Amino acid sequence: MPNAHNYTPEQNIAAIATALAPSALAVIRTSGKEVIELVAEIFSRPKALLQAKGNEMVYGWIVDKKNNIRVDEVMLGVYRSPKSFTGENMVEIYCHGGTSPVLAVFNLLLKNDFRQAERGEFTFRAFINGKTDLTKAEAVREIIDSHTDESRSRAIGRLAGNLFEQIDSIKKLIIDTLAEIEVEIEYPEDEETIANAFDRTNLILAKNQLKELSKSWSAEKLYQDGARIMLCGRTNAGKSSLFNVLLKEDRAIVSDIEGTTRDWLESWISFNGIPARLFDTAGLRITTDTIERKGVEMTRDLSRDADLILYVIDSALGINFEDETFIQDAQKNGIPVLVVWNKCDKLPQPEQDVSGNQTKIKYQVKVSAKQGTGISELTQTVCSILCKSESTEREVCGLGSERQKISVDEALESVAHALEVTEDDAPFLPLDAVVQDLENALDSLSEITGEVQADDILDSIFSRFCVGK
Amino acid sequence: MPNAHNYTPEQNIAAIATALAPSALAVIRTSGKEVIELVAEIFSRPKALLQAKGNEMVYGWIVDKKNNIRVDEVMLGVYRSPKSFTGENMVEIYCHGGTSPVLAVFNLLLKNDFRQAERGEFTFRAFINGKTDLTKAEAVREIIDSHTDESRSRAIGRLAGNLFEQIDSIKKLIIDTLAEIEVEIEYPEDEETIANAFDRTNLILAKNQLKELSKSWSAEKLYQDGARIMLCGRTNAGKSSLFNVLLKEDRAIVSDIEGTTRDWLESWISFNGIPARLFDTAGLRITTDTIERKGVEMTRDLSRDADLILYVIDSALGINFEDETFIQDAQKNGIPVLVVWNKCDKLPQPEQDVSGNQTKIKYQVKVSAKQGTGISELTQTVCSILCKSESTEREVCGLGSERQKISVDEALESVAHALEVTEDDAPFLPLDAVVQDLENALDSLSEITGEVQADDILDSIFSRFCVGK
Repeated sequence: MPNAHNYTPEQNIAAIATALAPSALAVIRTSGKEVIELVAEIFSRPKALLQAKGNEMVYGWIVDKKNNIRVDEVMLGVYRSPKSFTGENMVEIYCHGGTSPVLAVFNLLLKNDFRQAERGEFTFRAFINGKTDLTKAEAVREIIDSHTDESRSRAIGRLAGNLFEQIDSIKKLIIDTLAEIEVEIEYPEDEETIANAFDRTNLILAKNQLKELSKSWSAEKLYQDGARIMLCGRTNAGKSSLFNVLLKEDRAIVSDIEGTTRDWLESWISFNGIPARLFDTAGLRITTDTIERKGVEMTRDLSRDADLILYVIDSALGINFEDETFIQDAQKNGIPVLVVWNKCDKLPQPEQDVSGNQTKIKYQVKVSAKQGTGISELTQTVCSILCKSESTEREVCGLGSERQKISVDEALESVAHALEVTEDDAPFLPLDAVVQDLENALDSLSEITGEVQADDILDSIFSRFCVGK
Repeated sequence: MPNAHNYTPEQNIAAIATALAPSALAVIRTSGKEVIELVAEIFSRPKALLQAKGNEMVYGWIVDKKNNIRVDEVMLGVYRSPKSFTGENMVEIYCHGGTSPVLAVFNLLLKNDFRQAERGEFTFRAFINGKTDLTKAEAVREIIDSHTDESRSRAIGRLAGNLFEQIDSIKKLIIDTLAEIEVEIEYPEDEETIANAFDRTNLILAKNQLKELSKSWSAEKLYQDGARIMLCGRTNAGKSSLFNVLLKEDRAIVSDIEGTTRDWLESWISFNGIPARLFDTAGLRITTDTIERKGVEMTRDLSRDADLILYVIDSALGINFEDETFIQDAQKNGIPVLVVWNKCDKLPQPEQDVSGNQTKIKYQVKVSAKQGTGISELTQTVCSILCKSESTEREVCGLGSERQKISVDEALESVAHALEVTEDDAPFLPLDAVVQDLENALDSLSEITGEVQADDILDSIFSRFCVGK
């Protein structure tokens, strides 16, 4: 990560910005004052590059001129300061994909006065050059990491500046109040009526909006980080079939595109837009005794961190002591358990009374993994359990990071305190203290967008980026 | 793959051209007559895009206008026909990396009259629009798949047109001869002296150059496909240490760049530029009995396909019956075995006489995997075994595919036949037959560059590409 304390933006940086795997194209990004001249030194048409306007593409070859070797046939994207992502001069190299050509071009850059960029360093430069605020910078990382369309579109809202605008409008409410108070302190019209001169309406509005924003984080966090969901249950209950059915629904769109196949024992899946990492514990059980024991241990370890357990039971066999023990244990540890009555298609009477059992089953749903019935009910139930009472239907954009939530809570506390001390009808309001509170609130809000920044906050934000962003 | 028989280049195609994995950037490629207008329909600044010149980049958002949703913030690279890779209008979309944003943009394209491109379809269009010949098209695929710098730079030579030029100069030799003969047939000066009127020098030159080219393929194939090398030997002989030493030497340059770590039991490695897939059979042996047995079976299966076996022996223990049996078996199956005497640092006298053994050891080398000694000798020996008598030091560029080799051999056969029938001092040369031979030779050579193409050849070439290329 770029060290914000003693950062020198004079260096020319380069990074491989696409994934290093066989593919048609790859992008290497460079940024810095002299990148156009430096890339020209290893380009077959230096004049064309040096004369290129901003936002122009130039065709040619990357050439190792010292050794007289052609390295790759490329297009260069030229950006001239300040009209670029970082605000500096930039050259993007569109070369052939695949590890060898990409590394060959990249290593040649490193030999020619480029330094490998650190995580998030491009975005960091965009930030210090005033091309982005912190809410937008964080949204970029969110977009790259997003696992569902819903997660991405929430981040897109923040990238488009929706969160920045909300923070800004709250700041305006506070600044207006602050201005009013300061006039009052400087030029008190009438010492007796000072209490009335200070209109609390704006502050109350600001407090409510801050509360809303603070509350928004738990749902946003769910969309960002996703939930950990474990499939548990006895052997042959149908865990793997259910896993496959759930995956298939979600994966169909992806399956015919190369490069998306993953480990099928653990996979990202979308429950109505909420990303969830689904673990199929069945996959852990292999034949021999030692490995079986290891598998059971891993199941226990994994389920301790789970946000939800889908406990699959073969409806024909019903619930037994082993099942009850597992469910009770999990619930005791505070993990919600959704009992999935599988193989409902095989039962003569689909109605099954489970209320008489000893174990209190809070959530349950009937499905047939084989026939694919009951899956949408399952999905809805999972969503409602994960979201609890939180509304995920907010129209406006919520907070994008824990860091933002902390600052919003600090601002909220300051505003609440200012309102508190001016609540009673004391003849003399502690206006100085109110001013301090409101200034603190403004500082906290400015930290969110980055107008006021603590260096360690910057470090922690940009270190979470990909290289090349 | 594009079906060359009834291909309709009117459709607008799109493909994800970078690997689908979390990364800073990704590229989606589009090509076709109406791509600029079609992308403008889902772009926030349609006017800017429609007015963009060729080779210009345009900033904006991809927007799902029907649902009023911002999809991603992007740069568009605009190319106008015929100045583009395919020769058609093209728009390249540089969007955020990561599966979700890329798929969101891509799926929006598919909903807006784009068809997903097939493997190699972009290069295929470049070919049918006369932007590339087949030797260059095949070189692009080679570059993407290349595993070592040496492999890549050989392909780069072909992409730069070196092979095309060689083929072209051979064709000129044949065409000149053909022209001479045809003049002779049309306007015979003197029926008696017809044999002397036909100068065979050019044909002999052509034959020698074709022979050279044909021979070049076996070395080029090695650089392209790489060799399969197995590390075998008894437990504790030091296979894994050797594997790691060999990997480390090669990997040092890559190790600090994200995304390159692979499965360490099987890895690409460079032996002086020759790519080799190195298999560490030690990794196959796990604790329990069943798996151990499975491991031994897999070792046998793998070694059957090996181009070379590195058989590691602990020098202190010497060769035993088990070792000899394995080495003899392999050699009987035609697989060369290089015996690697490991742990040579531990021996008091490093000289070890192995010539007295029953098994005939053809290749051997002494190393210490622990101290890293003898590794460069090992590498050199591996190279010389893999290359056999083939020279890999050719200065000019060799053939790039099996297909090219077949055509070169056909041309060689035709030219050789023409020379053969005109060898003896027969008073009446069968000039018509020679003309037929030389025309066949030209056809074969034109197939290499694609001036004459059989549809099935096109199908097979372009189906080996990545999507998006």
